[in-house]
Amino acid sequence: MHHASDILLTLFVVFVAAQIGAEIAQRLRLPGVVGEIAAGCVVGPSLLGWITPEQILPGTPLDVLAEIGVVLLLFSVGLETRLEDLKKVGKVAFLVGVLGVLIPFAMGGVWAHGSGFAWGKSLFIAAAFVATSAGITARVLQELGALQRVESKVILGAAVIDDILAMLLLGVVVSLQDGGGFDLANLLVVLGSAVGFIVLVGLGGARVMRWNSTWLEKPHSAHSPLAIVLAICLGLAWLSTLLGLAAIIGAFLAGMIASETRQQHTLEKQTQPLLALLTPFFFVITGSKIDLAQLGSGEAVLMLAMVTVIAIVSKLAGGWLGSLALGRRSAVIVGFGMVPRGEVGVVVASLGLAAGVFSDRIYAIIVAMSLLTAMVTPPVLAWLLKRYPVPQEMPDH
Amino acid sequence: MHHASDILLTLFVVFVAAQIGAEIAQRLRLPGVVGEIAAGCVVGPSLLGWITPEQILPGTPLDVLAEIGVVLLLFSVGLETRLEDLKKVGKVAFLVGVLGVLIPFAMGGVWAHGSGFAWGKSLFIAAAFVATSAGITARVLQELGALQRVESKVILGAAVIDDILAMLLLGVVVSLQDGGGFDLANLLVVLGSAVGFIVLVGLGGARVMRWNSTWLEKPHSAHSPLAIVLAICLGLAWLSTLLGLAAIIGAFLAGMIASETRQQHTLEKQTQPLLALLTPFFFVITGSKIDLAQLGSGEAVLMLAMVTVIAIVSKLAGGWLGSLALGRRSAVIVGFGMVPRGEVGVVVASLGLAAGVFSDRIYAIIVAMSLLTAMVTPPVLAWLLKRYPVPQEMPDH
Repeated sequence: MHHASDILLTLFVVFVAAQIGAEIAQRLRLPGVVGEIAAGCVVGPSLLGWITPEQILPGTPLDVLAEIGVVLLLFSVGLETRLEDLKKVGKVAFLVGVLGVLIPFAMGGVWAHGSGFAWGKSLFIAAAFVATSAGITARVLQELGALQRVESKVILGAAVIDDILAMLLLGVVVSLQDGGGFDLANLLVVLGSAVGFIVLVGLGGARVMRWNSTWLEKPHSAHSPLAIVLAICLGLAWLSTLLGLAAIIGAFLAGMIASETRQQHTLEKQTQPLLALLTPFFFVITGSKIDLAQLGSGEAVLMLAMVTVIAIVSKLAGGWLGSLALGRRSAVIVGFGMVPRGEVGVVVASLGLAAGVFSDRIYAIIVAMSLLTAMVTPPVLAWLLKRYPVPQEMPDH
Repeated sequence: MHHASDILLTLFVVFVAAQIGAEIAQRLRLPGVVGEIAAGCVVGPSLLGWITPEQILPGTPLDVLAEIGVVLLLFSVGLETRLEDLKKVGKVAFLVGVLGVLIPFAMGGVWAHGSGFAWGKSLFIAAAFVATSAGITARVLQELGALQRVESKVILGAAVIDDILAMLLLGVVVSLQDGGGFDLANLLVVLGSAVGFIVLVGLGGARVMRWNSTWLEKPHSAHSPLAIVLAICLGLAWLSTLLGLAAIIGAFLAGMIASETRQQHTLEKQTQPLLALLTPFFFVITGSKIDLAQLGSGEAVLMLAMVTVIAIVSKLAGGWLGSLALGRRSAVIVGFGMVPRGEVGVVVASLGLAAGVFSDRIYAIIVAMSLLTAMVTPPVLAWLLKRYPVPQEMPDH
């Protein structure tokens, strides 16, 4: 009867740490998510050690709860996003996505090569600079009630495109690493299936739901519309991982489809308690992965600072250039919104470590960079959104 | 980026199986929970094997999700239960709890000894007949909107007392097994701390909340009352496991405390989506533990039938005798409400197996009995509640 004790204590610690962190952050006029990540760092292995490194490995209960948390978060963001609005910003989002991948990849590669790595390794390292993690930006936008701003639509659309490109790029650098050139035909199949999945699910699903969503209420269960869309959310999250995309892409699509239903408003309200319970796990676990010991030497700090600056500047430049059509102020917001790398950079670094491409030190620095960008973004973004509060009109493209 | 794929697929399968099972059950005019348990049996290792035995071991993500699910379920049941109402049925609930432990323990022991086991082993086996698992009954009562009936209050109160006694009894049979007599002083300490915990938390917490609950809204977060009571729920669930009680006892207390707040109604609404997402995991995982292969031989079926009948009759007798003061009809409802053994019987059986007291066969039969009582109860209870629909007045004790 006692085996449940340890895990319940851990759940309690993570959940309470998140609440305390968020409260402190909000009293300091920072977004709550900053406090949750910081709380994770405090209770994690680096400081208090109330969460052990073993507890946050992939596939552990905490890791799965964190995954469910971020999936639900992007689902709820999708619920507030209409396909029509995304279409309107399609061109800008595409540019932001493409430039936001190319510029960090180029700058990361040049830096790595300049630091003495061969080109093959350098490109792998560069791949870790690429992928934006939409979770953190989405949370900030949602916290500030800014999801209806045009910049938010651009950021979300670009994050989807960004994820496709990052996946392709990762496929290329991994195959280059395995020796041999890369298989263009295979790459086109991967690209085609990802794009096909998103277009088919996004357009098709939205059309079905707009046409008729009374069937969601057919089942006997009192919560049937919610249960059905949650099932769709889990299903699409799984399908998108199957195609090599992040789970949150599928979750976002599921939310966007559900936003076309008559029950959208109820669903939005019902999703809030789910987020309150589960998203703290994502942010606290993210924070607990920050390994402060890696910052022990001056040299490491310097290298980390350099890598982080390159990561921020390159992504900002890509997002800014891509969205200049919205005006300079909006372009800065979009640029910063794309900065967080979060767990995607961590995944690339883990692949590199497993493949023997990265040393332990490069690995630690890439991970720290990913998490630093995640920590830095929320306050800057919140400040920018408050400074430029005028809701932008949707441009007509 | 792909490790998340498997677990997402499993989450999807479990969640969808639960919805389909519940829907079919409800169309057959059975409680949804029967369908969820049956769905677990279908997708579990016994039949389709979409859930593997390794995935439902203690401490796995699915196991933790199931635990969170049942904790939230009992929390929400507590939210619908006022301390005043429980106090009114205190005497009856106490009698039901005590007789509902003693009669199954006696009958189980006699049967085991009659089947050829020594008294030491027989008492251990008998302990597996004792503990009611409130989760299944609570779900049926909630599904039918019957939580306000006097029988429900008695069942819930008795389940708390039952859990304390079961824990003490288990302590005794384990120490008897270790050779040596049992330590009465230690036992009294265990009893005292469990009772003290429940009384202190229940009475004290309820008083604090009734006196003032505006502080729940002090934090900046929009969902602060919910977040705070969920934190209390996780904390009390953990504390009760620490004292040897089931986690759901602490969760029920947390809900009962929260039911005294001004925000009770909002909290009740916000808890519904959490239940919709998470309780299916508990019931599907429960069902997936049913090992149909153990029913391969006629002899095993016969033994299982016998054990199950003893388990049902003995608990029914205890509950019925204990609650006769409410009238015969209500007494039958209370009796059946106490029948499910669910996961508690499974835990006792696992302890027995680990201690070498139980053979594989006895283990499998005890587990199957626990789950059969869980399967049998919901339809009977639903039928009884519909047949005797007159809401009973609260007796004045």
